[in-house]
Amino acid sequence: MIDCGASSLRRVRQLQPPAMTIHDLDTPALLIDLDRLVANLDRAASYAAEHGLNLRPHTKTHKAPRVASMQLDRGAAGLTVAKVGEAEVMARCGERGLLVAYPVWGERKWERLAAIAKRIPVTVALDSLDCAQGLQRHAASAGARIGVLVEADLGMRRCGASSDIETAQLAQSISRLAALRLEGVLFYPGHVIPALPQGRSDLDELGGRVERLLDRFRRDGLPTSVVSGGSTPSLYHSHRVPGLTEIRPGTYVFNDCTQVAMGSCAWDDCAATVLATVVSRPAADRAVIDGGSKTFTSEPLRPRGGATYGRVLDLAGAKFRRMNEEHGMIDLAGCEGPRPRIGDRLRIVPNHVCVTVNMHELAHGVRGEAVEEWWPVEARGKIQ
Amino acid sequence: MIDCGASSLRRVRQLQPPAMTIHDLDTPALLIDLDRLVANLDRAASYAAEHGLNLRPHTKTHKAPRVASMQLDRGAAGLTVAKVGEAEVMARCGERGLLVAYPVWGERKWERLAAIAKRIPVTVALDSLDCAQGLQRHAASAGARIGVLVEADLGMRRCGASSDIETAQLAQSISRLAALRLEGVLFYPGHVIPALPQGRSDLDELGGRVERLLDRFRRDGLPTSVVSGGSTPSLYHSHRVPGLTEIRPGTYVFNDCTQVAMGSCAWDDCAATVLATVVSRPAADRAVIDGGSKTFTSEPLRPRGGATYGRVLDLAGAKFRRMNEEHGMIDLAGCEGPRPRIGDRLRIVPNHVCVTVNMHELAHGVRGEAVEEWWPVEARGKIQ
Repeated sequence: MIDCGASSLRRVRQLQPPAMTIHDLDTPALLIDLDRLVANLDRAASYAAEHGLNLRPHTKTHKAPRVASMQLDRGAAGLTVAKVGEAEVMARCGERGLLVAYPVWGERKWERLAAIAKRIPVTVALDSLDCAQGLQRHAASAGARIGVLVEADLGMRRCGASSDIETAQLAQSISRLAALRLEGVLFYPGHVIPALPQGRSDLDELGGRVERLLDRFRRDGLPTSVVSGGSTPSLYHSHRVPGLTEIRPGTYVFNDCTQVAMGSCAWDDCAATVLATVVSRPAADRAVIDGGSKTFTSEPLRPRGGATYGRVLDLAGAKFRRMNEEHGMIDLAGCEGPRPRIGDRLRIVPNHVCVTVNMHELAHGVRGEAVEEWWPVEARGKIQ
Repeated sequence: MIDCGASSLRRVRQLQPPAMTIHDLDTPALLIDLDRLVANLDRAASYAAEHGLNLRPHTKTHKAPRVASMQLDRGAAGLTVAKVGEAEVMARCGERGLLVAYPVWGERKWERLAAIAKRIPVTVALDSLDCAQGLQRHAASAGARIGVLVEADLGMRRCGASSDIETAQLAQSISRLAALRLEGVLFYPGHVIPALPQGRSDLDELGGRVERLLDRFRRDGLPTSVVSGGSTPSLYHSHRVPGLTEIRPGTYVFNDCTQVAMGSCAWDDCAATVLATVVSRPAADRAVIDGGSKTFTSEPLRPRGGATYGRVLDLAGAKFRRMNEEHGMIDLAGCEGPRPRIGDRLRIVPNHVCVTVNMHELAHGVRGEAVEEWWPVEARGKIQ
């Protein structure tokens, strides 16, 4: 059992009165359904084990050593982070290794990473020799060795060279840097959504691109011991990508409205909700809750019927239609049951849980209405 | 001179090496152009003084006692906050009074507010008797008195009753609660954008609605000593609203792309930028910077020519077109000058500065490229 932040958890547990429920919490509050979280973690762990894939979950979604420790308990091969600040938080339970899936840039950041790499295995995904040389310099001067995955763009149009030749040439150059350890390739298949109707060909196309890239690497004598891909929408299709050794889903731990819309999960797989209070009922068709863009962030989903900012639970027909920074406007016009009164509480599934969690200092683990524990979102807001 | 957080500022100042520039900062970093900030503060203070309006700036934008103290130094009549957590931070320089422009709900929040009200004047804007009764109960038991402004909806469709009769009836009921002190009315004219072509009639219409509401209050013997309105877009038109005594603009301190788009200010009035580093140049027409929705938040502006997520300075033709959580994709296709290289830094004016500032722990006060001071964004992320 890996102990991540157990001492701080013990502290908050001691503060917790017996038989606390969500009704005792101040709002807005981030709730995590522990049974759903565990089911999500178990399912991904079983899938990875069944298909011989390393699961290196991206901690950007939960930002909490508490949840990272649950992933590691279930056999995660290591952890993924996006920033050095997140790496510093996750290093506490990072003995199996941290992958920074980001082209880290800057003297101070390289120095901080090299310091972590002296203690635990650290790998960085990057797409330029400039970046590799910076890491090399700091790793060498710290007496550390840092792993490198070369990032390839297989259709996402974000980072990574889009030609196999360029990717292989960069890998070749990196393999000559003594304080780095070239491990293979990384890509982010965020553009592949296998559950959508047009998704199947995307996945096949991705598989073809991975095969061609790995052929090139093998022809050039470059390592392919790590081939890292995997997003939440593509998670359970990863075995269909030839040569893949590792997957890095993040959102799967909690899921959200966007994942449901993409067909990645069902509503019952959504573990995270924001508990909010109705603070105003200024019109028959409007309830205002105490959370807006500074609680949820403001990423709308646009299903047929107009934009929504989250799914209101247990209030059929209510629509979260507008928000300001601290106000959430719930449209009750189509509300089927009794309309909520001031002081009533609503639970809302966020549209994009990763950015919502990043707004909260605490996550409350619940079973039904019982609050069983809470934990600090320790890597929240680590901006550098 | 009101001292807000001077001791913590002294601490960070001591840490600051002489002649530090923005090139010494790690990125992403929030920069505040001090000359522009001061000009924005001075202009609003002069306007308010000239027209006999109380300026009670909304601190939600800067979330920093450092900036609040600059507003108070220039004659602000008090401060506005949105949350109890913000009130607790701003109480330190709140001796002229805090207005919580939000219908605060919940036993613990009322208790925390009553504790503040024992030390400094506190006023709450609300739109229900339920809310007033909660405040009354806690104010009474703390031996405090809390001011109340009744919120009216004059077209924003957020909080507040939309009929003058209901607003006056609520005020009447509140005036009977002994631990509360009914002071007048509050509205938020966020729907009025006088600089836009259709804006003139909106402002006239708003004026008419205010007049009718105040007539009703006067007829009913209700106080109108405080009539609180004022957003940033309507700031310099506030004198045209009859009966207005107080304005609560927030964004005017820093301004942003949205304010420019609404005609509230010019680009040269934008004091806040995010300094970011180009971490990847994966294609001729694409630079990736180390900031996305967890640095800026993701509120797009949609001018003709497609959505943008901020204005890239000093790189004519570059467009901030897409973002993920930690990646910002800059489209260089229309870039007129030399294209940036990996490691180059860009300064970006955020679309909505209030939510961007809320993502940052520190704000750096700059003059040109010199970093003159920095301050903690102390009320950042105070979610309750």
